[in-house]
Amino acid sequence: MMNGHIRVGIYGASGYAGIELVEILVRHPQVTIVFATSNTYAGDTVPGTPLTYIPHAQADLADVDIVFLALPHKASAPVAAAALQAGVKVVDLSADLRLNTPEAYERWYQTPHPNPELLPVPYGLPEINRAQIPGNAVIAAPGCYPTTTILGLYPLLQAHVLLDGAPIIVDAKSGVSGAGREPKPNTHFVEVFSNFSPYSPGRSHRHVGEIEQEIGKLNGAVGPLIFTPHLLPVDRGLMASIYVTLNDGFTSDEAQGLYEETYQHEPLVTVLPPKQQATLRHVVRTNGCAISLTPVTERYLHITSVTDNLRKGASGQAVQCFNLMFGLPETTALL
Amino acid sequence: MMNGHIRVGIYGASGYAGIELVEILVRHPQVTIVFATSNTYAGDTVPGTPLTYIPHAQADLADVDIVFLALPHKASAPVAAAALQAGVKVVDLSADLRLNTPEAYERWYQTPHPNPELLPVPYGLPEINRAQIPGNAVIAAPGCYPTTTILGLYPLLQAHVLLDGAPIIVDAKSGVSGAGREPKPNTHFVEVFSNFSPYSPGRSHRHVGEIEQEIGKLNGAVGPLIFTPHLLPVDRGLMASIYVTLNDGFTSDEAQGLYEETYQHEPLVTVLPPKQQATLRHVVRTNGCAISLTPVTERYLHITSVTDNLRKGASGQAVQCFNLMFGLPETTALL
Amino acid sequence: MMNGHIRVGIYGASGYAGIELVEILVRHPQVTIVFATSNTYAGDTVPGTPLTYIPHAQADLADVDIVFLALPHKASAPVAAAALQAGVKVVDLSADLRLNTPEAYERWYQTPHPNPELLPVPYGLPEINRAQIPGNAVIAAPGCYPTTTILGLYPLLQAHVLLDGAPIIVDAKSGVSGAGREPKPNTHFVEVFSNFSPYSPGRSHRHVGEIEQEIGKLNGAVGPLIFTPHLLPVDRGLMASIYVTLNDGFTSDEAQGLYEETYQHEPLVTVLPPKQQATLRHVVRTNGCAISLTPVTERYLHITSVTDNLRKGASGQAVQCFNLMFGLPETTALL
Amino acid sequence: MMNGHIRVGIYGASGYAGIELVEILVRHPQVTIVFATSNTYAGDTVPGTPLTYIPHAQADLADVDIVFLALPHKASAPVAAAALQAGVKVVDLSADLRLNTPEAYERWYQTPHPNPELLPVPYGLPEINRAQIPGNAVIAAPGCYPTTTILGLYPLLQAHVLLDGAPIIVDAKSGVSGAGREPKPNTHFVEVFSNFSPYSPGRSHRHVGEIEQEIGKLNGAVGPLIFTPHLLPVDRGLMASIYVTLNDGFTSDEAQGLYEETYQHEPLVTVLPPKQQATLRHVVRTNGCAISLTPVTERYLHITSVTDNLRKGASGQAVQCFNLMFGLPETTALL
Repeated sequence: MMNGHIRVGIYGASGYAGIELVEILVRHPQVTIVFATSNTYAGDTVPGTPLTYIPHAQADLADVDIVFLALPHKASAPVAAAALQAGVKVVDLSADLRLNTPEAYERWYQTPHPNPELLPVPYGLPEINRAQIPGNAVIAAPGCYPTTTILGLYPLLQAHVLLDGAPIIVDAKSGVSGAGREPKPNTHFVEVFSNFSPYSPGRSHRHVGEIEQEIGKLNGAVGPLIFTPHLLPVDRGLMASIYVTLNDGFTSDEAQGLYEETYQHEPLVTVLPPKQQATLRHVVRTNGCAISLTPVTERYLHITSVTDNLRKGASGQAVQCFNLMFGLPETTALL
Repeated sequence: MMNGHIRVGIYGASGYAGIELVEILVRHPQVTIVFATSNTYAGDTVPGTPLTYIPHAQADLADVDIVFLALPHKASAPVAAAALQAGVKVVDLSADLRLNTPEAYERWYQTPHPNPELLPVPYGLPEINRAQIPGNAVIAAPGCYPTTTILGLYPLLQAHVLLDGAPIIVDAKSGVSGAGREPKPNTHFVEVFSNFSPYSPGRSHRHVGEIEQEIGKLNGAVGPLIFTPHLLPVDRGLMASIYVTLNDGFTSDEAQGLYEETYQHEPLVTVLPPKQQATLRHVVRTNGCAISLTPVTERYLHITSVTDNLRKGASGQAVQCFNLMFGLPETTALL
Repeated sequence: MMNGHIRVGIYGASGYAGIELVEILVRHPQVTIVFATSNTYAGDTVPGTPLTYIPHAQADLADVDIVFLALPHKASAPVAAAALQAGVKVVDLSADLRLNTPEAYERWYQTPHPNPELLPVPYGLPEINRAQIPGNAVIAAPGCYPTTTILGLYPLLQAHVLLDGAPIIVDAKSGVSGAGREPKPNTHFVEVFSNFSPYSPGRSHRHVGEIEQEIGKLNGAVGPLIFTPHLLPVDRGLMASIYVTLNDGFTSDEAQGLYEETYQHEPLVTVLPPKQQATLRHVVRTNGCAISLTPVTERYLHITSVTDNLRKGASGQAVQCFNLMFGLPETTALL
Repeated sequence: MMNGHIRVGIYGASGYAGIELVEILVRHPQVTIVFATSNTYAGDTVPGTPLTYIPHAQADLADVDIVFLALPHKASAPVAAAALQAGVKVVDLSADLRLNTPEAYERWYQTPHPNPELLPVPYGLPEINRAQIPGNAVIAAPGCYPTTTILGLYPLLQAHVLLDGAPIIVDAKSGVSGAGREPKPNTHFVEVFSNFSPYSPGRSHRHVGEIEQEIGKLNGAVGPLIFTPHLLPVDRGLMASIYVTLNDGFTSDEAQGLYEETYQHEPLVTVLPPKQQATLRHVVRTNGCAISLTPVTERYLHITSVTDNLRKGASGQAVQCFNLMFGLPETTALL
């Protein structure tokens, strides 16, 4: 602590999620950002702060109470381990701590887990796991596709109204910032502009493992996830278009009420009124999620769930977890 | 005929589909465009031609062998009736002649059919109904969503390998030109830019009727169509992301072969190799359709089908029908 | 006043500038928004507030201390007159009160001024006219092109270092929201997307009158304004690319120092360091202006000045004037 | 020659200009593309052809009559030298052969010219240098900014009506494909989307040397070029917004007639009627240039000149030169 402020370090602060994290934390009244790391931009000014980026290796864990890790998977877990060793709390935005077992990690990331001793770690989706977050030294903040998908399904999963064995179909679309800041052929302006393209379809995207893991904790009897992400020609925003089959105990017309009740006290989740459709504009540059429901037939329900992939899908959610870890009002700096 | 050329009139030639139609027909070696109508732009030059737009009422059916109708629904059928009366052939790009009965029309368009005596009319999707097109005086050219969806499903429907009663889920996305040229709040640049939004979800979009009608002719046992269109922040291009359940007699791995065989002689349909994904860029500014397949599990198949909504989804297909009607090589002016 | 709050009414609150005005004022700690008018959207919820839009005619001037007028020119002045009559202060965002004489108004707007008795009114560009704003009952908030251009020129004009008689060349670009929310052919998504186009070039744009009027007050000897605006395929943001000729008493290398000194205490104007270039991203969604300078040769200087057309170019500046009128800290709700 | 076809090799065929070159040459009736090189994409299919890309080093000059070089500067000249040595003609799209002296090259490219013995080479802007192109073994095809700027100025330069010593101001904007296909931070979708930014302003852009060289040949008395390029958030298209001062012998009202007369027989240059403004849409995906004129005052003229940077600004022009070199109709494959 420093003058009553929580001392924060940010690893990977020059990536798109890292930049948003800085932007949020700069306005957080209980936080002082002590360092922000970036190997690529070391020496440059950290926007909105008096700091300059330092290389990861120069960050001193002794100076901080908590670190946010916005690092690539595989690079993140070792830093988390070192921080915890040093008595520093951790919110990890990477994928390293989201899967509960090293085996699951290796299956989806095709590489051994760098620090299996850390697993499992609480999955930081406060609307579902709020009780597990305070008092923990480390939290795994979920990715953008899982957050948007799981929040869109949660009331149905919890109420056990999905038909056993029926697939959950998610046709998802993400803004380009979800692909990271490093220039690559598929994020070149000319390749994305006026185009729209699926990638990692079916069950090949890495987030399938994370989503199914969390779905399974809520309802172990649902069928497989069918998940097709697409690259949208916008900078930010993420939509999950979800198609589910209901069981006999529940009709699609009841969904609106169920969702409204489930989320009625959630400050960061909005259930739109019937007939309105959730769009990117409902959430871009906010830390919230918006959900709309369409009863298609009695047994089939369509759900649209949207977030800002850099906010509720990354940095906003990380700060939400941080607030809970430190006993601060959950939405501090997020409204 | 005029010097061996077919004399063509275009109604509604200043709309986005009409403009494309002119662009294609200008390069058609057997065609002379005699008139192009537009009430809104009457007096303006028709791009790429020496003509000026004339009001619909000034068009003289005695001057032409065929008319293309790119008019709003309800306005189109009466012109079709008048043309047929005058011995002039018709390709109708509107919705007026696509549904086979006045009852179906009234159900989906909430208005009585203006000319029920014209129904039914052959549905101008040559890859499926090629044999029905030559020798007809009038053809109903299908819309963009139906074309893209039906071509994406056709091999499965024809082979009767879809699970009886299982829904066909289509998550569709269209470029903004699909919404027409008349300025409206939802097509204002500021509303569309950096946004992405569903509309007419579930079973409420008018094209559901047309798609289900044609599906039913091929396979009457499949379940309901679940159809969610979205507005994409691009000018043109349309994608149907299709999710289907297969029956026991067929596995998803067999789909690639089935599609390749079905479409092997189709000049305007491309089945992409396994693992490649169809994107808007495969088809924009062409008259073709591209399809990619992802076996998700043994029973679940994902199909991506793309067209240019103004070409294979409108004007290109209309010209393809025209070529067939007049016994010309089917792809004249389309490659 | 109401519980110590200033009671505010907003006319034309559903236009793009009006929406931003509401967004800013909702967060203003000394303000209560009493009504927000819109003839087009009457009855709809005013985003971010518990209010619904009311028709202009239903607004009661007795309920408010001040009105913001985000109305079309010609419609705004009569409301301003009525408000002043009722003892209500006015910040007018329209063009009606910016030109100092009815003659100038008629020349540039080709219509007689609706309320010539109101003229002249202080021109609400605080960085230049700060002293004239407090104590006034009515302020004319400048438009987006004039604000961006005049702030880009001000240090040179004030220091009298421009060559007498030499033209001031401004190649300007505006995001589409500058063209208003009413759907028109030139703001249709399909027309703007992937395009870039000049309009009202030379000396034909209405803002030329307003810019030259204000330039003339600072330096009456400069040459004509040559002004070419363009429509940029983005939703918001405005850039003025300015080319000037310096007189013998000043070289282009001295400009950086002059600008830094002139604006050193301005919270909403940023002079970028040498070699950096001002871009839309420096200012979009902020209430500030950013300026960069390029000495081309000793006598020729290039200046890039950028604002958010809806903020510093409209609503942000209106609130800045409002703060000054009421003796509040100038940047309240603007940082 | 091969069956009466000219045998063509393309170096750098996978860059954006190279891809367009292939697209044009595939439809050229007198051409057979023998090889297309790309070190980055070697082994991939060359779109629209039966060929695969081969590494530069594997190309055999003995197989071709002419090579197009769409290589980076510094890499291009040595290949040109080798080709000429082998008796193969060359159209060079790089900057290597555009400047007439090694000294000029070193000044603008900060590196010694790799093959000074090749200089000078005819500058391949057919509308100006048509007579110099036939019979030459090597042509330097101009860049996109120079082409668009010089065509916009040519009638004035040739008629000697610009005021001696007065600067020529060019505010230019280019689509992102002008920055090349290699992924770089400044071409990342997220950096460009919804942004607009100047770069290399004043007299620092490398094309200034090339433009001034060609201007100087037409009129040696004009003042300096002031040139500010900007990155436009579109994939292709280039606009030069040009501001000039006329001398006493000519008024701005006479410009329209001068331009129409100068370009009346040019198939690829369109002078728009008075009051119309040239936009990107006039030229994108064409091989032409469109020009519009605005008389601002008697002495000041504003010119807007547009091209597709990949076509008339690169590959289209290269093919135009090729047609002239081989005595073919100049617009073959270009209309």
